[in-house]
Amino acid sequence: MSIPTGANTNMILRLELDKEIASFGNIATAIGDSGGDIVATDVVRTEKKSTVRDITFSVYDQKHSDLIVEAVGKLPGVKVVHVSDQTFLLHLGGKIEMATKFPIKNRDDLSRVYTPGVARVSMAIHENKARAHSLTIKRNTVAVISDGSAVLGLGNIGPEAAMPVMEGKAMLFKQLAGVDAFPICLATQDVEEILLIVKALSPGFGGINLEDISAPRCFDIEKRLVEELDIPVFHDDQHGTAVVLMAGLINAVKLVGKKLEDCKIVVCGIGAAGTACTRMLLSAGVTNIIGVDRQGAILKGKEYENPFWQWYAENTNPHHIEGSLSEVIEGADVFIGVSGPGVLKAADVKKMAADSIVFAMANPSPEIMPEEAEPYVRVMATGRSDYPNQINNVLCFPGMFRGALDCRATKINEEMKLAASHAIASVVSDDELNENYIIPSVFNHVVVEKVREAVINAAYKSGVAQRRREKVQ
Amino acid sequence: MSIPTGANTNMILRLELDKEIASFGNIATAIGDSGGDIVATDVVRTEKKSTVRDITFSVYDQKHSDLIVEAVGKLPGVKVVHVSDQTFLLHLGGKIEMATKFPIKNRDDLSRVYTPGVARVSMAIHENKARAHSLTIKRNTVAVISDGSAVLGLGNIGPEAAMPVMEGKAMLFKQLAGVDAFPICLATQDVEEILLIVKALSPGFGGINLEDISAPRCFDIEKRLVEELDIPVFHDDQHGTAVVLMAGLINAVKLVGKKLEDCKIVVCGIGAAGTACTRMLLSAGVTNIIGVDRQGAILKGKEYENPFWQWYAENTNPHHIEGSLSEVIEGADVFIGVSGPGVLKAADVKKMAADSIVFAMANPSPEIMPEEAEPYVRVMATGRSDYPNQINNVLCFPGMFRGALDCRATKINEEMKLAASHAIASVVSDDELNENYIIPSVFNHVVVEKVREAVINAAYKSGVAQRRREKVQ
Repeated sequence: MSIPTGANTNMILRLELDKEIASFGNIATAIGDSGGDIVATDVVRTEKKSTVRDITFSVYDQKHSDLIVEAVGKLPGVKVVHVSDQTFLLHLGGKIEMATKFPIKNRDDLSRVYTPGVARVSMAIHENKARAHSLTIKRNTVAVISDGSAVLGLGNIGPEAAMPVMEGKAMLFKQLAGVDAFPICLATQDVEEILLIVKALSPGFGGINLEDISAPRCFDIEKRLVEELDIPVFHDDQHGTAVVLMAGLINAVKLVGKKLEDCKIVVCGIGAAGTACTRMLLSAGVTNIIGVDRQGAILKGKEYENPFWQWYAENTNPHHIEGSLSEVIEGADVFIGVSGPGVLKAADVKKMAADSIVFAMANPSPEIMPEEAEPYVRVMATGRSDYPNQINNVLCFPGMFRGALDCRATKINEEMKLAASHAIASVVSDDELNENYIIPSVFNHVVVEKVREAVINAAYKSGVAQRRREKVQ
Repeated sequence: MSIPTGANTNMILRLELDKEIASFGNIATAIGDSGGDIVATDVVRTEKKSTVRDITFSVYDQKHSDLIVEAVGKLPGVKVVHVSDQTFLLHLGGKIEMATKFPIKNRDDLSRVYTPGVARVSMAIHENKARAHSLTIKRNTVAVISDGSAVLGLGNIGPEAAMPVMEGKAMLFKQLAGVDAFPICLATQDVEEILLIVKALSPGFGGINLEDISAPRCFDIEKRLVEELDIPVFHDDQHGTAVVLMAGLINAVKLVGKKLEDCKIVVCGIGAAGTACTRMLLSAGVTNIIGVDRQGAILKGKEYENPFWQWYAENTNPHHIEGSLSEVIEGADVFIGVSGPGVLKAADVKKMAADSIVFAMANPSPEIMPEEAEPYVRVMATGRSDYPNQINNVLCFPGMFRGALDCRATKINEEMKLAASHAIASVVSDDELNENYIIPSVFNHVVVEKVREAVINAAYKSGVAQRRREKVQ
């Protein structure tokens, strides 16, 4: 699979050039002919017979880069030492770090933050555990926990490979909502072990964000943690996606003048996100939902191995529509894709009802590229940051946890999720609403505060907020 | 137990005063008469019949503060609303936080640090796990793991209450050595569960610092983690204490002109630290070591429940000395206390050999206070930051992990520990060495770098460093 870089990106190619044979003109030509654009060249070092140079050039994607590197590598007297790019350079040593809130300047400071002074603080918490919320990082700290089993659209790539994603998430938590999030990637995919671990870790955390854990294990893990812990547990792939999708959908149907509950909605990819989106649609009053996975539409009366497909079959597809995605898409008002790249064809979109709405949210490559769908679709949204209408969980999780931590909610319930959807949708005013703007940008500074407020209000109304109301501003 | 504040500290007393009855003069007198010193008074708010004031005053310790609060609370028209102090105020919301290494400024940045760009970084690690050391926080991140079972000298106070100590440790890691340390306090004290958890957590960490886990579980946990993980695992209560004690002892015997291997050494408190100190003494050639616990000297031939007491009995006390601490201390050159407060009496110190050396390291209250021991002792060291010669693990763990991370050591072995002891001792020059200066201050900027260098050299020599030597400066 060719993984897009996500943006025109600069590659840095380190070359060792034989002074007598290699020609820089040839290199420049090779890069130019392959569609690359040289941005800069730097001499790293010169030796008697050779020169080492860094050539920085911009490319469209990984494939494009590979092509150029191959072309340059074939030139006489040229040896490719190393290829890197801005994305990799940004990741060197990781993207987050710890910081002390104040310096330890002298012995007095040391006596207070560490032994012996810290003993009094520890004893105060020992006497009353609830004090951990005010005297430790628990108040503002969320664990971002993954087992690396379903990372982005990349699949089961393991805990080490999941870390850059979780670090990115922690960056967003901090920058957007001031939440301290720490990434924990587990070298186990056993449900009981994960439960044991997360429960054991929980004393130091004010919330648990589960991330990129594959279905059906994620359902069981989340359900049991919610039951057993007194801090919010939120599987972002399920509920974050569902909350933001619902926000986009609220605005999309408003734009095209349809009623959500009258729409025929095809959900493609019945995993964690697909199930959560469907549950949220059902609770919003939508009935005509058809779930599609690899073997076609999910139907009542069939036997499924997954207990949650069984649930799905019993609660959706009221008209008992059979067939492949290409068949059931006929006349649909809304397509919701949380599956894999290229699953939806232009011909399929063509068959949809007038003013069709396509949410192609597979990451990093959507079910259909916007360019392909454009001629046949009224509103198009993806999960990507490089197209309009990005259905990005980033719109939800920072404000959701900010709100939950601030009112010390014991859980994140349905009321809080729906409140968050409406809060996100409300950021786009009726005047602003159009085909390319159904959902605010992740850089919109209003979003986190709106979500936070809505979540806090819903938490108090539904009785899960523990902090005295007057203390939460 | 009265827990000392560790330094003269300011208390803040919030009082609600009945305007008609209460007199500020009476309050000032009550505080002054009890030995408190008023530093400031602030009016918080004034209502019709009452005023709320914050009175800041300095005290010696918690007991002193309680005394004053009680005296003030008895005055007519005075209601104590709240008592806090600088130590508690410093702990509000915890002492550490997460930070992003650079801001996400625009969509391009977001595409690189998060989806879709991050996918390439994840795939690069998926192809070769070792890349996690360069492309994630693993390179510089240590987990500080405790189960709250043996926190300072406070005992089994649980994971929530252990957090302030672990946060303090993380502060020191960062400030002194630039190591990112994250505190994880576990709600389990089961050995198998702890092993399972730490192994599962390890992909995101470059090292594991075990902390405040009670004996004998700590021995088993550390041993098995060292065997099964390819990153350094270090139980600081054992080895950090032993390394710094050995550094102090190297300098103390040099000062009094004795040879370490000729000394009679009494070790009091045969738990995690006591055992580790003894092992280090044995490997340094000391033979005449007598271990003492509550029931007296540990003797070969007796039956002990703890398997490590069995080991202790077989490897120490060659002259088969029986009796209580007061008996076996007779003629000892060195006392090493890693037990509890007040265990050693002045009369005991009096019985020691000439030029006696006392290391009273119980935390936060030593086996004997320096004031009490002073008349009879030549060199006195404690674990406290408010007396000279502080045997503080802070001298070891930052440089130890800095070195281990920098050379990517797979473990922290005996060679590295001994190298660290000599490095710490070497910071005090022969000219500087005296009774009040056998060990450098934790604020001595040379220590971390010296320890780091020594540890790296020892790691390469003993073959546990994985990084190419020329890459480590």
